[in-house]
Amino acid sequence: MQALPGFRDFLPEPLPHRDAWSADVRRHIFNAWRDTARRYGFREYDGPPLEPLELFTLKSGEEIVQQLFNFEDKGGRAVALRPEMTPTLARLVAGVERHYRKPIRWFAIPQLFRYEKQQKGRLREHFQFNADIFGEPGPGADAELVALLIDSLRALGLTREDFVIRLSSRRAWQDFFRARCQDSSREYAFYQAVDKLEREKPETTDSLLRDLGSSLADVRAFIEAGQPTGELQAILDNLAARGLADFVKIDYGVIRGLAYYTGAVFEAFDRKGEFRAIAGGGRYDQLVKLVSGGKVDLPGLGFGMGDVVLAELLKARGLLPGVVPGPDVFVLFESPELTADSLRLVQQLREAGRAVEYPLGPLKGDKQFKRALELGARWTARVESDPQGVRQVRLKNLSTRAEQVVGPDAVLQQLAGE
Amino acid sequence: MQALPGFRDFLPEPLPHRDAWSADVRRHIFNAWRDTARRYGFREYDGPPLEPLELFTLKSGEEIVQQLFNFEDKGGRAVALRPEMTPTLARLVAGVERHYRKPIRWFAIPQLFRYEKQQKGRLREHFQFNADIFGEPGPGADAELVALLIDSLRALGLTREDFVIRLSSRRAWQDFFRARCQDSSREYAFYQAVDKLEREKPETTDSLLRDLGSSLADVRAFIEAGQPTGELQAILDNLAARGLADFVKIDYGVIRGLAYYTGAVFEAFDRKGEFRAIAGGGRYDQLVKLVSGGKVDLPGLGFGMGDVVLAELLKARGLLPGVVPGPDVFVLFESPELTADSLRLVQQLREAGRAVEYPLGPLKGDKQFKRALELGARWTARVESDPQGVRQVRLKNLSTRAEQVVGPDAVLQQLAGE
Repeated sequence: MQALPGFRDFLPEPLPHRDAWSADVRRHIFNAWRDTARRYGFREYDGPPLEPLELFTLKSGEEIVQQLFNFEDKGGRAVALRPEMTPTLARLVAGVERHYRKPIRWFAIPQLFRYEKQQKGRLREHFQFNADIFGEPGPGADAELVALLIDSLRALGLTREDFVIRLSSRRAWQDFFRARCQDSSREYAFYQAVDKLEREKPETTDSLLRDLGSSLADVRAFIEAGQPTGELQAILDNLAARGLADFVKIDYGVIRGLAYYTGAVFEAFDRKGEFRAIAGGGRYDQLVKLVSGGKVDLPGLGFGMGDVVLAELLKARGLLPGVVPGPDVFVLFESPELTADSLRLVQQLREAGRAVEYPLGPLKGDKQFKRALELGARWTARVESDPQGVRQVRLKNLSTRAEQVVGPDAVLQQLAGE
Repeated sequence: MQALPGFRDFLPEPLPHRDAWSADVRRHIFNAWRDTARRYGFREYDGPPLEPLELFTLKSGEEIVQQLFNFEDKGGRAVALRPEMTPTLARLVAGVERHYRKPIRWFAIPQLFRYEKQQKGRLREHFQFNADIFGEPGPGADAELVALLIDSLRALGLTREDFVIRLSSRRAWQDFFRARCQDSSREYAFYQAVDKLEREKPETTDSLLRDLGSSLADVRAFIEAGQPTGELQAILDNLAARGLADFVKIDYGVIRGLAYYTGAVFEAFDRKGEFRAIAGGGRYDQLVKLVSGGKVDLPGLGFGMGDVVLAELLKARGLLPGVVPGPDVFVLFESPELTADSLRLVQQLREAGRAVEYPLGPLKGDKQFKRALELGARWTARVESDPQGVRQVRLKNLSTRAEQVVGPDAVLQQLAGE
């Protein structure tokens, strides 16, 4: 029996001939995300992985249902596994924002689910680092969020040689569109045409754009000019002051597919262009209002970064964590009359915070030592009895092979000294 | 719009008039579990929250379906949200055990889902600390697992006054049953009758037990005698050698409802008897064989500890974490010409690992200072310019209110010194 197609098992470490996924790699990535969020003053939240279906159709329309794991529960409720975190977040913020000082800076690391057509490398679940700011309309918040994105990638060892943030503006595209077409109901169709510029046939796009008062040449000229709006310039200046100018560039080719963006938008890409987008986000000042039925009006912005493309990039750049260190101490158990003393030593070391292993069942002395080496233990410790029956502990440093014999109460001190 | 009934939102910290749940409490509990597992040499794994329905019915029979969130996915597969971790674990271990040295010591913290009738305090999801050992048949492994359970509760501040492990033996009950009844097909019915002893009417239980060759008085006498088997005595001696004797007692009233246990079983309870079981587990030497269709035969044992009862107990004992500390530094932004220098300071502090906040948008000086106090910042830092235009940083310790003015490059040193 196997996991469902598109779902990952996380073994402690990657096995030969298996995927790169492992629980160790996942924890390494989550730790970097969490620590960067902490340095930026972001607080963690979460919501349920299963939500009312309506929460997702409200924001994205009925067409999203075909990409969902959705069903009717035993109480007759239409429910779905969450495909993204933003609707849950908007629901939470609309409900509790009055209890929090603004700006609210929150992050989460949810597992998300999409029923996508099975292809190589396309999964049906992934984990996503979501970071959002609510209650601050100015470009200082956009810059802070982009800086958080940059530093969460740097925390994993990636440099300005490895990735770049492509910064754009939904507002700039709005101005562009409105100068060419009066029919605001077609605005979203225009954004989608620009979003698909590199993927669709040029003739198809050109014909569609001409119908909207523009053209492929017109749109390309705008992208190539790449003239930052005042808002984007403020974000660039802010990032430059932090020393992060090399991590970001204006690129109006980015527009983001989702309907709800209202201001600056951005995506992170590897510089070599080998992978899909690493992360993406932007400003969505109307979303809380939409989800709260008009009750709460709070500007917002955020990004999402998945673990799948990121782990592939880290692997390609040799930045995945190495083999996890073995236990601090492997306690060798020898004669049965010393078992109780050996267990006491195990407990004493663990209570002092040390990672300790020992043979759980009977095992010959040389096999025990071999096991300590295989596990990569830093020390072995063996309780011994001198001719007067006094207990002592023989410590062996497995790197230097140096041995010492100390009293049971001096073991911790001895280990701490090296 | 709200979360589905029985599903929790995790806000960063608990709000007044809301449940005790929060992302901070959850992280506090998870950190204690993970750190104890590390000290015991247990390695983390995970599996998908959605699994083939068959994985669960194979182990627990068709009757479990009525308690599941199960459905048919868009590919026509019968799937279910996992109600427990052990079937996924047995699937994983059966598939990869040959790559790992025995004994295998693994843990996970999955979110689990059950469609239960809605009652106060009964949730439809919870997180569970699962720890398991494979490949070691002797009582040393049972003792190690019980010690891990004890120390993971102690890591949260609970003491021998707060909880006790009730240790029992499915094997002792098997001997008891077989001495009284030859019909082995009725063995599981007998275990279930014992399991429900305290909850069913005495007459009902007595009548059922008489039908199985025993009686209520017979069973009660066996429980009251509480004579440890050789195996249980070995576990008790092992725990006593670690200094953990006071945390455990023999109690044959514990038998565990699930069919698959084969040896020692145990449950953790609060001493005052205010709450449901905190944790439960035992030995299941046949399960991997069952799940692998006979291909892999590996003794196993494990326990599960949920976060819901545990958090209630921690709250009742005053052991939930206090208010999360505010940022290390709140940087005050004053005149616009110093904004770039202030942002550089923010970045410098964060790159050194400090948690830093500052006003993302325009905010008057006194409001900024008030905000730093509200957030519980330890320091404020303000970039200033002396008459020659040289930048300096004014640091204020918000506990002592002491101020110092230092050069930008001396800020980190100054903070590290206090």
